[in-house]
Amino acid sequence: MGIDISHAQTVEVGYDEFCGALAARDLQPLWKIAKQLMPDVPIPTTQPWLWKWDDVLPLAKRAGELITLERGGDRRVLALANPGLRGLPFTSTTLWAAFQYLGPHESAPAHRHTPNAIRFVLTGSGVYTTVNGDACDMEPGDLILTPNWNWHDHNNLGDQPMVWFDGLDLPLLTTLESIFFENHPQQLQQVEGHNRSEQGFAGVGLRELGASSPPAHSPLLRYRWAETERTLEVLHQASGNPLSSLEFVNPLTGGPAVSTFACEMHRLYPGTRTPSVRKTGSSVYVVFQGSGRSVINGVRFDWGPGDSFVAPSWARVDHEASERADLFAISDRPVLNALHLFREETLAEHQEVSGTFVPLKGVEISADQS
Amino acid sequence: MGIDISHAQTVEVGYDEFCGALAARDLQPLWKIAKQLMPDVPIPTTQPWLWKWDDVLPLAKRAGELITLERGGDRRVLALANPGLRGLPFTSTTLWAAFQYLGPHESAPAHRHTPNAIRFVLTGSGVYTTVNGDACDMEPGDLILTPNWNWHDHNNLGDQPMVWFDGLDLPLLTTLESIFFENHPQQLQQVEGHNRSEQGFAGVGLRELGASSPPAHSPLLRYRWAETERTLEVLHQASGNPLSSLEFVNPLTGGPAVSTFACEMHRLYPGTRTPSVRKTGSSVYVVFQGSGRSVINGVRFDWGPGDSFVAPSWARVDHEASERADLFAISDRPVLNALHLFREETLAEHQEVSGTFVPLKGVEISADQS
Amino acid sequence: MGIDISHAQTVEVGYDEFCGALAARDLQPLWKIAKQLMPDVPIPTTQPWLWKWDDVLPLAKRAGELITLERGGDRRVLALANPGLRGLPFTSTTLWAAFQYLGPHESAPAHRHTPNAIRFVLTGSGVYTTVNGDACDMEPGDLILTPNWNWHDHNNLGDQPMVWFDGLDLPLLTTLESIFFENHPQQLQQVEGHNRSEQGFAGVGLRELGASSPPAHSPLLRYRWAETERTLEVLHQASGNPLSSLEFVNPLTGGPAVSTFACEMHRLYPGTRTPSVRKTGSSVYVVFQGSGRSVINGVRFDWGPGDSFVAPSWARVDHEASERADLFAISDRPVLNALHLFREETLAEHQEVSGTFVPLKGVEISADQS
Amino acid sequence: MGIDISHAQTVEVGYDEFCGALAARDLQPLWKIAKQLMPDVPIPTTQPWLWKWDDVLPLAKRAGELITLERGGDRRVLALANPGLRGLPFTSTTLWAAFQYLGPHESAPAHRHTPNAIRFVLTGSGVYTTVNGDACDMEPGDLILTPNWNWHDHNNLGDQPMVWFDGLDLPLLTTLESIFFENHPQQLQQVEGHNRSEQGFAGVGLRELGASSPPAHSPLLRYRWAETERTLEVLHQASGNPLSSLEFVNPLTGGPAVSTFACEMHRLYPGTRTPSVRKTGSSVYVVFQGSGRSVINGVRFDWGPGDSFVAPSWARVDHEASERADLFAISDRPVLNALHLFREETLAEHQEVSGTFVPLKGVEISADQS
Repeated sequence: MGIDISHAQTVEVGYDEFCGALAARDLQPLWKIAKQLMPDVPIPTTQPWLWKWDDVLPLAKRAGELITLERGGDRRVLALANPGLRGLPFTSTTLWAAFQYLGPHESAPAHRHTPNAIRFVLTGSGVYTTVNGDACDMEPGDLILTPNWNWHDHNNLGDQPMVWFDGLDLPLLTTLESIFFENHPQQLQQVEGHNRSEQGFAGVGLRELGASSPPAHSPLLRYRWAETERTLEVLHQASGNPLSSLEFVNPLTGGPAVSTFACEMHRLYPGTRTPSVRKTGSSVYVVFQGSGRSVINGVRFDWGPGDSFVAPSWARVDHEASERADLFAISDRPVLNALHLFREETLAEHQEVSGTFVPLKGVEISADQS
Repeated sequence: MGIDISHAQTVEVGYDEFCGALAARDLQPLWKIAKQLMPDVPIPTTQPWLWKWDDVLPLAKRAGELITLERGGDRRVLALANPGLRGLPFTSTTLWAAFQYLGPHESAPAHRHTPNAIRFVLTGSGVYTTVNGDACDMEPGDLILTPNWNWHDHNNLGDQPMVWFDGLDLPLLTTLESIFFENHPQQLQQVEGHNRSEQGFAGVGLRELGASSPPAHSPLLRYRWAETERTLEVLHQASGNPLSSLEFVNPLTGGPAVSTFACEMHRLYPGTRTPSVRKTGSSVYVVFQGSGRSVINGVRFDWGPGDSFVAPSWARVDHEASERADLFAISDRPVLNALHLFREETLAEHQEVSGTFVPLKGVEISADQS
Repeated sequence: MGIDISHAQTVEVGYDEFCGALAARDLQPLWKIAKQLMPDVPIPTTQPWLWKWDDVLPLAKRAGELITLERGGDRRVLALANPGLRGLPFTSTTLWAAFQYLGPHESAPAHRHTPNAIRFVLTGSGVYTTVNGDACDMEPGDLILTPNWNWHDHNNLGDQPMVWFDGLDLPLLTTLESIFFENHPQQLQQVEGHNRSEQGFAGVGLRELGASSPPAHSPLLRYRWAETERTLEVLHQASGNPLSSLEFVNPLTGGPAVSTFACEMHRLYPGTRTPSVRKTGSSVYVVFQGSGRSVINGVRFDWGPGDSFVAPSWARVDHEASERADLFAISDRPVLNALHLFREETLAEHQEVSGTFVPLKGVEISADQS
Repeated sequence: MGIDISHAQTVEVGYDEFCGALAARDLQPLWKIAKQLMPDVPIPTTQPWLWKWDDVLPLAKRAGELITLERGGDRRVLALANPGLRGLPFTSTTLWAAFQYLGPHESAPAHRHTPNAIRFVLTGSGVYTTVNGDACDMEPGDLILTPNWNWHDHNNLGDQPMVWFDGLDLPLLTTLESIFFENHPQQLQQVEGHNRSEQGFAGVGLRELGASSPPAHSPLLRYRWAETERTLEVLHQASGNPLSSLEFVNPLTGGPAVSTFACEMHRLYPGTRTPSVRKTGSSVYVVFQGSGRSVINGVRFDWGPGDSFVAPSWARVDHEASERADLFAISDRPVLNALHLFREETLAEHQEVSGTFVPLKGVEISADQS
């Protein structure tokens, strides 16, 4: 039974030639790289990093002047490219975050793709995203889902630009080699109704009799800021803790809003530093309002409205607000949970702070008054 | 509500300077790379590739002479490094396959790690792998699990070397930045019993009353070849098809044996070419016995016992045996299923064959009779 | 193999003596009763029936004068006893419904039991039910859960009596021989907080990060009428249908609020008769507001506020409001779903009405002005 | 808000007249019956009982002479009627057990019904049950499923009678008012294959790739005695315990073979009395081989091959074999688990034995040598 190797030959070569023979045959010897492949704890390539709103916003506006939204590009998006990822336009190894800028009276054309996407609105008004015919209004603080293979286009009817934070699973789906993309036959979808997805979900724990869920994502496509804020406030009043955290979930199943990452909101109250926590998987935060600082692996990151930062897997992280602050975040925890890989631990003591993050690597560019 | 941008500035720079300003701030413009990031269908970096047993075996034997098994390296493993992955020692973007060589009277020391691993035995006898104290015998055609965070060591009591095929989720866990590793305090574990995991599973559909499953993997750690072969034969007699395919599953749940990839066995009967199929996710095959050829994206790969090959995501694949052949395979389908990303389609016609794969890129090395 | 019956004897008796011999040995011959045991479609013993509020309320008030709430009885409850169930105090074969009357400044002592119970408030104010230390306020239209093995007591701080509708799975648990009951060591529980269960659920699709669900029931114990009504209204505006139906669910899982029956709210708009539907399993309705009529198996049941009625399994049922009406209902559908026994069909045409239900079987009792 | 009761009247009647008024209106006062409805622990109506093979077999044979198998009766079945259930032909409140006798060259016609049924063969050979076209051979010790709404007929090609033990959920489905029944258009189904359901399940933990499960029951319809016995033996060798217990499960999900009750096999080794256990839900046992005794709530039940007995919910139960014994059992545990009602406890000491069960209530009937 099994392959007969009784007549197998060896090759009488020295170690160097042997290594060369391996390389020539697309073989790699594990024993040379075992510790890099299998470190004792995760050694992320994702770097802790922060992008300043004061850097992003002028460039986003300039992009609004320089770039049009046409088939091919489709979107005016500035991606947060993690310097640890060797030039890839990804924010962590699994998550992709970006700022998207939609000028007054602009529309971004309709398409669909297998990557799940969410939009968290930072500024602007009078915009709606049409998802499979349902025009979902977008106001600051709202979370809008454009899940896997759902048609979507964005439309700004107002006189002001809108900027939102984009969260996608693009790096993970690149690794999974599972990206499909399709343009809609029309430039924009026919609108069949407004905020329809909310109609079945007017009350907590109340479900239309007979309602069922699409297998892969929440049927609720818009989570309004007013609901989010009220929930944060109630959680705070109930616990008295300096940190209230909630997850946006599928109301029909309690599972994550999209299958590949979690959407979270964290409200920090000033005066207390949260415990240092480390967990597997990365998170990308964007500050909706307020200011403060986070310590990631001993480095202090100061942040204010519109700033965005990323914490890699197994990094020590704590936060402290200097004024009450609301941070939206995406995290790949659902993937780790599904694969039984999630670990989390709270450190007994706060980590020491050994430095402060200074993002800008190059020269300053001058910004004229517009 | 929202961030006030009424006083926001733009930057009066031309397009080139604008692009430079983005790069200096770790921002990347999506519109330049949209089609690469979001192709219409998956464009894998994983290349279809094949590793010849006749290349691997002499080098594995030579490694047996040159390399000892000690703490640090721990294993004598030749990894199948896909040329598409720019030097990474991975077989696809999610899967890692390797040949492991354990010489007579050798032991590979005890450790554990979060990557799930499986071993499919190609040749040899008299070996056991101890998994959390349970000594699992290894014979040709057997599948042995050493799942996430289970202690394991390998022991060859016999006079012949053993070679097995290793399958791990190492690339995926590298992307998920979730690898933990620990050496066992002893060189080898204490053996508490032999083939104990099989004791609860002596009959199909029969479960010890009150038995429960570890959350992340099958409690059955050894799948014997005799059972596998009998099942393949029964499936063939029932269907009459030229291809019988089975999956190794957790007998307590029906789910995959480990959470991050599927273990499969395919028996091909000569005389018929299977339909061309493409599906999301990659698969790595190793030939246990028999010979034939597979066509992957129009290129013909000829294979015989011990040869291993990889099919990337969304590649067209069909097989044809020249004599009855058994192919063991691993596939990342469970991950795609869990995230609602699995797609599969069967092509109406066979793909055309435009070339034949020739693996060896460099010079021949001479092998002396040992 | 098997039991040896080669030497078995027969008994030389005639048919009558044979039947007697069976009876004497606690055996019953199936062939005589096959059609009763296995009818072509369900032949419920549960009868369609209706209880008039005008009958119930005076008796409930009188019970308030005659009966005190003490250990032993514990509750002042008038159970809806279905005449088809041969004297059993059950409303259907699986469901128990009752009216509970709690006088001003009264308390019903603390206990717990395995039957799940829900309370739907019909009239009164200033009452709370303490569930495991959480004082849940009760106002008209509110639904309060006192699930399996949760301590609960009821307290009326006001000057008015409260009457609510009780729904329990008592008949099913009697059949399952699974009823446990325990008195609390104190007459009333210590109140540890007010409406605490609502704190985690202030917004739809928003979950406290890390929240988990008790396995058997919703963590939300109070569903306020204002939320229920708003949801009914939104559903109606969305669909335009004369019937809006919702289910009260566990917000963490989307499953039923308690494991053994569903809690539903139906809003009927006047002017349209709903289609005739039949489904497996029974439902008990109580009218919260409005009036109308339901046709059950051809018999018309007229109803107004406070009336309660039961529809048996596989009965044809349709409804028509004469003024906008809200009906609360409990149904054993979750049990049938869990056991893969649920069937439902909508009839192509309305059923004919062959009669009108007249509940009162006996003499009228006179009611003085109180 | 709520029903206005400000003008509600009371009824000035004494307690007796009040009770009469309730009864006249189909209302029952809980306070009079609270302890019966809600006992501290289950008070089963199911009685512990035993049916002797020596009583059953001669009557079954006589039934074979007196009763033919025709449309209407369809089956020659002697049901085990529990004396506690007031004449109902049920063995417990949820389970129905019976002995079915199929004479040489007889067939029982094809029908289907929503009650799940299983057949455990006690004696005979050369019989098959056709389930949806699949002819499943029946040999002693085999378990055959004829699940919810699957067509089935029984056929004896041999010269000997077959007797099997029938297990059904008939009492539970009667309570759930969910029984449907249909005769097949033909007297017997067309046989499309033999033991086909076994073809996909030739090895433990091996599943045909792409196989899926019917939602409500196991796709494997025959569990052969040889597999069952081998598994019992392996479990015993592994544990050394005097009791080995297994459950027959759906190999694709690990769940119960049918949704409404568990099928179990218990092997007892002589010389040791098992611990006393009590659990919610009832079990019906039939002795396949061997002899011994069980103590149920202090009463000793002696049993040998072919005897059958029932243990009610929450009864104390222990067993002791006088020679190695195999007991097949059905239990409603899956229902209790699904509804979160299962409880089980092992008593620290053996129960005292206060009496011995003597089943026969009436006169002896004489059995002639056949």
